[in-house]
Order: sequence, then C-alpha cells, then structure tokens
Amino acid sequence: MHIGLVGLGKMGGNMRARLRNAGHTVIGYDRNADLSDSSSLADMVEQLRGLGDGPTVVWVMVPAGDPTRSTIAELKELLDEGDLVVDGGNSKYTDDAINAASLGEKGIDFVDCGVSGGVWGLQNGYALMYGGTTSAAAKVMPALEALKPDHTEDGLVHCGETAGAGHFAKMVHNGIEYAMMQAYAEGWELLDKVDIVDNVPEIFASWRTGTVVRSWLLDLLVDQLRADEHLDKIKGYAEDSGEGRWTVQAAIDNAVPMPAISASLFARFASRQEDDVAMKAIAAMRNGFGGHAVISESEA
Amino acid sequence: MHIGLVGLGKMGGNMRARLRNAGHTVIGYDRNADLSDSSSLADMVEQLRGLGDGPTVVWVMVPAGDPTRSTIAELKELLDEGDLVVDGGNSKYTDDAINAASLGEKGIDFVDCGVSGGVWGLQNGYALMYGGTTSAAAKVMPALEALKPDHTEDGLVHCGETAGAGHFAKMVHNGIEYAMMQAYAEGWELLDKVDIVDNVPEIFASWRTGTVVRSWLLDLLVDQLRADEHLDKIKGYAEDSGEGRWTVQAAIDNAVPMPAISASLFARFASRQEDDVAMKAIAAMRNGFGGHAVISESEA
Amino acid sequence: MHIGLVGLGKMGGNMRARLRNAGHTVIGYDRNADLSDSSSLADMVEQLRGLGDGPTVVWVMVPAGDPTRSTIAELKELLDEGDLVVDGGNSKYTDDAINAASLGEKGIDFVDCGVSGGVWGLQNGYALMYGGTTSAAAKVMPALEALKPDHTEDGLVHCGETAGAGHFAKMVHNGIEYAMMQAYAEGWELLDKVDIVDNVPEIFASWRTGTVVRSWLLDLLVDQLRADEHLDKIKGYAEDSGEGRWTVQAAIDNAVPMPAISASLFARFASRQEDDVAMKAIAAMRNGFGGHAVISESEA
Amino acid sequence: MHIGLVGLGKMGGNMRARLRNAGHTVIGYDRNADLSDSSSLADMVEQLRGLGDGPTVVWVMVPAGDPTRSTIAELKELLDEGDLVVDGGNSKYTDDAINAASLGEKGIDFVDCGVSGGVWGLQNGYALMYGGTTSAAAKVMPALEALKPDHTEDGLVHCGETAGAGHFAKMVHNGIEYAMMQAYAEGWELLDKVDIVDNVPEIFASWRTGTVVRSWLLDLLVDQLRADEHLDKIKGYAEDSGEGRWTVQAAIDNAVPMPAISASLFARFASRQEDDVAMKAIAAMRNGFGGHAVISESEA
Repeated sequence: MHIGLVGLGKMGGNMRARLRNAGHTVIGYDRNADLSDSSSLADMVEQLRGLGDGPTVVWVMVPAGDPTRSTIAELKELLDEGDLVVDGGNSKYTDDAINAASLGEKGIDFVDCGVSGGVWGLQNGYALMYGGTTSAAAKVMPALEALKPDHTEDGLVHCGETAGAGHFAKMVHNGIEYAMMQAYAEGWELLDKVDIVDNVPEIFASWRTGTVVRSWLLDLLVDQLRADEHLDKIKGYAEDSGEGRWTVQAAIDNAVPMPAISASLFARFASRQEDDVAMKAIAAMRNGFGGHAVISESEA
Repeated sequence: MHIGLVGLGKMGGNMRARLRNAGHTVIGYDRNADLSDSSSLADMVEQLRGLGDGPTVVWVMVPAGDPTRSTIAELKELLDEGDLVVDGGNSKYTDDAINAASLGEKGIDFVDCGVSGGVWGLQNGYALMYGGTTSAAAKVMPALEALKPDHTEDGLVHCGETAGAGHFAKMVHNGIEYAMMQAYAEGWELLDKVDIVDNVPEIFASWRTGTVVRSWLLDLLVDQLRADEHLDKIKGYAEDSGEGRWTVQAAIDNAVPMPAISASLFARFASRQEDDVAMKAIAAMRNGFGGHAVISESEA
Repeated sequence: MHIGLVGLGKMGGNMRARLRNAGHTVIGYDRNADLSDSSSLADMVEQLRGLGDGPTVVWVMVPAGDPTRSTIAELKELLDEGDLVVDGGNSKYTDDAINAASLGEKGIDFVDCGVSGGVWGLQNGYALMYGGTTSAAAKVMPALEALKPDHTEDGLVHCGETAGAGHFAKMVHNGIEYAMMQAYAEGWELLDKVDIVDNVPEIFASWRTGTVVRSWLLDLLVDQLRADEHLDKIKGYAEDSGEGRWTVQAAIDNAVPMPAISASLFARFASRQEDDVAMKAIAAMRNGFGGHAVISESEA
Repeated sequence: MHIGLVGLGKMGGNMRARLRNAGHTVIGYDRNADLSDSSSLADMVEQLRGLGDGPTVVWVMVPAGDPTRSTIAELKELLDEGDLVVDGGNSKYTDDAINAASLGEKGIDFVDCGVSGGVWGLQNGYALMYGGTTSAAAKVMPALEALKPDHTEDGLVHCGETAGAGHFAKMVHNGIEYAMMQAYAEGWELLDKVDIVDNVPEIFASWRTGTVVRSWLLDLLVDQLRADEHLDKIKGYAEDSGEGRWTVQAAIDNAVPMPAISASLFARFASRQEDDVAMKAIAAMRNGFGGHAVISESEA
C-alpha cells in the first residue's frame, strides 16, 4: 500500500524501513530534512495522491500532546473525506476521542494504535494495539500486517471500535510493565542485601528456565546483573512516562483498586527526589514529640 | 506503695519523679551511679524488702531486647514467689511470653506495660496499656494510677490476661501513628508543591478547629511548619522503631491487610537510602530495553 | 451583610441559620419551595439588590459538577460587574478556574470555599478554606467570619489568590482524612483479630488521653466501638467522595508519591466489590499452574 | 547415584520418576504404602546402605514445618557422619539453620533446596535453588543435574554456603511471582471494566510477542481468559503460601521497602474476607460524622 509517515526518528525511521522491506511505498515527513522524503506535510500528501487512487493514509509517529495535536490539525486541512489518519504515538486515550471527532467533521477516518517494540521492532516486528472502526482499520491493514511480528498471530489486536481503545490497551500494558519491573526490583534488593545469599545474578539467571517468574524482563535484568553484580554503576533513578500515570488515573476514574501499579509509580516519583519530601514532615512531627528518643527504639 | 525502678534515663527518671510526687516510695537503679538510688539490682531489692512486707514490685524501664532480657533474668534470681516484675519498656510482645514463663518458674508474677507519653509524661501523665492477670496487676495498681493522666478514665487500660497484651496494644498504637503521620506528610507534600496553593502552614493551622483531621499530631505539625514553612531545615529522613515493623509482621502472621501502615513503614525505609536501591534494578531493566527513549515519554 | 444562598439542604439550611444568628440578612433559594426564601434565582438577586447598594454576593451550596456549573452559568446572566459568586460546594478545583474565567468575562468576582463541619457546623462553626483575590474575598468576609468557629483563629484560611486554592486545600484535607481513617481501621482489625488482646474498645478509649494518636476521629471510633464491640452490625463497605480520588490524581499530576492515601482509596474501592475482581485473574493464573497445590503451602 | 526420597506425593512421585529416567536408583518412602518403596525411614536407609559404599543421601520432600522437622529429626537418628540430608520442601529459611545445626551435631551434612516446576517438572525439569557447602552439595549433584531442565545452564543455582540460602532464594522468587500476578490482575480488571475496550482476551494474547510484558504467567492468563472471557466462573479468592508472607517479613527485617509485593499479599488476604473487616471501622467512623452525607459526594 501507499502510506505517509510523519515523524522519522529512531522509531519512525525503523518503521519506515520495515514497511518498505515488506514492499510498501512510504512517503515520510520529518522536520529534519535529512530524514525526510518530502518537504512538508502538504508535499507528502500530494506525493501520496500522485501514487494512485483510493484513500490517502497517514501514520503520525510524533510525541504525544501538542506535537501530535498540531500535526493532526494540519492533516485535517490537507486530507479529504474517506482518508485516514493513524496516531501511532503514545497519545493519551482521551486525546483520541477529540482528534477523531475533529477529523470526523471532514469525514476523515481515525485509528489510534499503541506500538511496542523499541529498537528490536525493525527486525522482530512491533506489537500493535489499535482502536477504531473495522472499516477504518481496513484501510491501513496491509501496513499493520507488515509492522507486526512475522509467523505469529500475536502482536496485532483490534482493541475496540471506539477511538482510544488502542492507546488505552497500550497504556495498561505499560502500567503492568511498571509493576512487573517493581516486582523484580524489590526481590533483587532483598536478595542483594542479605548476607545469607550469594551469587544473586546467577540466581536470577537460573530462573529463566522452569520457573513461574520467567519473562523477557527477567532476561534483560540478568544481562544487566551479570555486567554489574550490585548495579553499582547505575543510579537509582527512574523516569516515568505518561502512560503509567494515566493508567492509575484511569483506574481511579473507574474505581479499580490498583495498589501494585500505583506503588510502582510512586516508587519512581520518590527516586527522583533529592531529599525525601514527605519524610521532612514525618521528621518534623517526630521533632515535635520531643521525647521520642527517650527510650531507645521507641516512638513516644 | 514501694516500687523498684530499673532504668533512670529521661523516661525512667521522669516516671520516678511522677511516682514520688504521688507519694510513692521509689528505689531506682541505673548503671549510671549519678542517677541511681541503689548500687545494684540486689541492693535495690534489698532496700525494697526493708521497706515492709508484701510482694516486692520492680518496674523495668530499659531498652527492649537484650538489656530487658538480662535485667529480668537477674531479677529472677533476686525475687521470690509472689513478687512482681513489670516490663514497661518497648519489648516485643513475643518476648513477654518468654519472660513471663521464665519468672513463673519461681512463682514470680509478670505484667507487661506499654507506656506512651514522652517528655510530657511527668506533668501530664503517661498512657499505659498493660497485660497480665488481674491479680498480678493489682500489685502495681497504685503506681499505674499515679503514672496515668489525672482527671480522666483514659490513659490506663487492661489489654488482656495474657503476657504481651499490653505491649501488643502499644505496638499497634505505634503502627497507627505511622500511618497518621504519613497521611499528613503526603497531604503536606502535595500542598507544598502545587503553585495554586499558598499559605500552607496556615492551612494546616486552620484545620485544628472544626475539621475531621484535627489531632494532636496536627498540632505538632503546625508548630513545625510555622517555624520553617517549607521544612527546608529538616532532612527528609525518618528512623523507625521496632514497633512499626512488628505491627506489620503481626498483621502478616494474622492475614490482616495493612496497606497504609506498611506503606508508611516502607516510606521510612526508603528515606534512609542514599541512592534508591530498587530503582537501580528498574533503571537497569530500562537500560536493557535499549530503545526506551525512542519516542519521548515512551517506555518501549 | 446581605447574602444570597443557593441550596438549602441540611448543610445550606444550617449555614443560613448560623448566618442569621450572627445578624446577617440571607435570601435563600432552593428548588424546594418549602425551604426557599425566593421563587427563583432571579427573584433572589432582585431581593438582594433591593436591600441596598454595594455588590451583590451569592453563595452557591449545591452538589459539585453539573448542578454547580449550571447555577453559576445562570448567576452569570443575573449578576453584574463587581458582584461576587462564592462556590461553597465540593467542586473539583479545576472547575473553579473555568467558573472564575466565565464570570470574569462580565467582571463578576469569584471565590471558591471548601467547607468542613457537617451537622455540628450550625452550633460549632464551619472550617472554611477559601481561594480568590483578597479584594473579592473581602466582599464576603463578614459571612466567612460568621460561619467559622467562634473564639479561635482557626477554621478560616485564605489558601491562595488563584481560583481553586480553597477547594484544593479542602480536597487534600479529605485525602488526609482517608488515610487517617485507614490507619485506625487497620490497627483495629489487627487488635480485634488476635487472641492475645481483649477489651479492644477500651484500648481505643484509653488512647484519647496522653497518646500520639489522639484525635477527633479516634473519639468517633470509640463511641462506635463501645456501642458494637466487634462492629458486627456494620457492613464493611465504604463509599468514596470525589475528593479522595482527585487528591491522588492531583498527586500523580505533580509526581508526588502518595502511597498511604492511595491505599486508603483503593481499600474503599475493593470494599464495594461483591467478588474481588483482580483476584479472579490471580486465581485464574493459579489454576493455570496446574501443579500449584502439589506441595502444601507451595505456589509452584 | 543412590538416593532416598521421603514424600512421594504428586511432586515427590514425579521427581522419583525423573531421577529414575536419568538412571539413578531411588528408594522412596511415603506413609502411604501404595506409593512407598520401603516400609519405614529405617528400612529406606538400610536399603540405601545395601546399595553400596559412600555417603547415604536422603532427599526430604514433605510439607514445611512439623512434618519436615520431625522427618529430619528421625533421619538424624538413622544417618551417620558424612551422610547428607537435602530439604527440598518449602521450608522457611530460618528452619534450615536449625536443622543444619542439629544434623551437624552428628556430622551429617545438610543442603536446602527450593524447587519450582509443578506438574511440568517431570517432563521439563525443575528449577532448583540450593544452599549449603560445596562439598555437601557435591554429594547430591548427580541428582540435581538429573532434576534440572535439560539443555540449559539455567534452572540450577548455588545460592550460598549458608544453610537456608536456597530456600531464601525460592522464597523471594515466590514473592516476585505475587507482584507479577498482581500486575496482570490489576491491568486486566481495568481493561475488563472500561467500555472503551473490547476483546480483552485477545489483547492479552497479542502481548505474548514483541512486548515488554511477555512472560510465562501471561501465557497462562491468556489460556484462562480465552476459556472464560470475564472469568465469570472463577471466584475472586486467592490463598497465599507461607513464602509470600516470609518474603515481606524478611524485607521488613532488612529495612527493604517492598510496596508492590506487600500490596499483592494484602490483596490476597482481603480476597478471603467475607466482609471487608477494616472497612467496618471506616464505615463506623463515617457513621460518627453524622453529617457526612449532607452534601452529596462530601465527606464532612
């Protein structure tokens, strides 16, 4: 198929390559002219139209928030009824309803697609979770089939007819990921700290076969532990993406208890504080006790 | 009544004063001769016996663990059937059963007593939670009545006939305290951080009358915030006493969910880490992703 | 002063009474004509204007969300430049910015005010947390002074110049309340469950004097426990208000760790589930193990 | 090698089969004569001695706690200096030090071994984590090599020279497992609840390839969701093994924050309560407010 691709960074660039490897025609656009196949979004759309009849399909792969919103607003001006915009970035699911409604004013279809895969995607394929109508998705299906992993039915799923369903599923995927990582991290901290246990990297390595906790994340952790047994070279600091936050906020909106995922998110927040802020208030109250240290080990 | 008091630090010293103010005779013993009324435990017991008939009562007010255990072991040698040992320190409740059984071999009674009050206790009285048989407790009741706050039925409670009941109740009191402090601390951190709100110390101050969250801890926090609005002078670092740990461990032994108290305990643990240890493992796994930074704000 | 009061339910009705007791003139409006002093919002505003010169001040005390939004929209039509609307309901702080901006288009001032106090407010006064400019607040200050508790500087606080500051502070107050209640609840569950401890209601009662955990919530709990020692007559089910949810969501927006308050919120969510939903997935995975029961006490 | 195996339930029976398939001679003992190769522990030891020279090696595979303790006590009477006992059950790591010391009084070696694998172990091999001296472990190494998975270096690891190191590692493995399962469960509950998303079983299925959350537990969950989309047939109820509890308790002993694993444990506790106990106290306090329902959605 013919497809426009906006955003040719490492992720978008690899996706372009994978699509071309599968025989599709990709006209990319990026603000960086060195990466771009077109001089502007308008030029990209014009080139796509020159390639033949049928709906024009544009895949947007730019950062969530304003960049995605402004790109889609511009595409709304350029595209016509029956064309399709796919948001393959990490947009919040609530943005999708807004974007879909805006494009819908001109009869332009919209599909949202959560994409997982990182640097391995080019070779191994991407896991794709998409939302939107079946008829809209059909317009981009050849590209979805090309991007997904080969030789499996996994890696491509229609999450619902409603705009945002795909990003919602990807968001929850990331929330789950947070708590899985936290699970290994807590277990590792305990094993690394106690005197009774040695050989912690090899313990984790041994778990890769025959245990309940085997996973791809475990494989990653083993590689890191073998390179730096006590992770001395790594700062205990973790960013969080919007998706972890949105997952917990969506859980709260829906009265879903989410103690482990929220704990994982809060642990990341705390890791980024130079001094532990809430503990200042705890310490202040303890100062207020005055006598809290009167008996050793006693609070009051 | 006549009573021996072992351990004359700030806490024990104040208790001696409060007992004497109420007209009781206290023979204190402390390793520090400057504080002590007797030259040894044996001398203390001998002096008590010289004061009259009736059971000899000794209140132990030394740090939990080995100091308390060894003191009680020594008292076991010195005391006789019908005498009474009170453990008023912060012993773990499981120690009480052991100490009670050991003393019981000689027919010596045992009462455990959790004591709250800190530096205000001398003037305002101590909150006392005791465990043991009613007949054993009767031997020390005049002292308990003198130590508790005046003009109230609060502050003195018989928590059960079983040795350890008093320390168990005091332990849970401290566990509750952890989560109450954490509640204020979390709320303060949020209020202090957002731009929309000013005047945070006075917000907390205003809550002292007419609100659901009014408490003595709130009063303490207000004093601290008024002295140092953003708590800039206070390090975000909090010790934990054994009692918070034991509370959560007892909850786990009894299959009681304890998410808020445990979260409060873990927050203290984390505050004492120079680098956030578990986050090292999180960061390591994120390094393993390789492409996690491909799209801004994306995990993978 | 003269003030309009919209919403004369139990809360609004009591506030009207307290304002009148202080000598203020209140023209109330409620959809229920039996409670109302006026036939419509327009009639209320007209009556207020008839009472004299100066800005017209209207206090809105209706449920958060649509009722408040529509009331304020209608008042915008009725009021003029220099008049004042106070939102004393439980609006989300983000609504305040919208309402303030809308009213500002006509030069109408806006103050948001979180109100705590419940049924005791009429007699004891209300705790009031307000946001807005000092000049706007000045227009309603006599009413604020009348509503707050007597004989104290507590209970009335200016939380910031920005619309929403008052509701934000009240929101955090409620979040803190959640975790304080959870703290007592967890401690009570453990004490009530273990065999070693008896007399649990009196243990809680004893804590009311001389301990770190004394508070108004503790007082309430003691009354309930004395009436129903094991709370057998009470269903373990707790609603949550919007404010608890918004507190955690605001914490997440601001990267503030909030483990105890969120745990308290999640515990309420879980209490309302007939069957424990997430545990269905846990149980499903355990079924998948197949052999998880092979060795007793073993997972796999 | 020749090895005695005590406990021939499903797990022990399969292990006997796997050992024999590898050419080893196993003399099993079970209280159930139908399963047993010997009439008593004494008979088992006698048969083993009759098979040749060298140390007698006995693998204990009975439930943790008293059954394991009494079995090891009996073996201590039967075995001689230089013989070896392996505890392959799910003993608490602190038991191992006691058992090792007791056996050591007669010069009998001790190895503790955590075993994971369940019903697949017979065919696929078991993951084995062992603790003890290298020389002691050497005596049972042929059996360990036979029990572990084939064609991999994973699945067998020496966790430390100290008795209990193996069980400690297995314990932490199970703690990690708890939080991983909770992670999927929380994500599933949210996805299953929201209207925006359909097709939840296939979303989980799609994640098995190309995503960060792929794991063996995910594979299990997919099978269950495909058979029962909303898990309607499964009760939301999860037992916990001792190992999850011990993991959190060990974390607390070592001042290791463990928010996600503890949350997972507490969620299991709560799932087993008919009524939510702590929420009774929350509801009681809310009753005490009296006016908490005055304004809809308000707490107080």
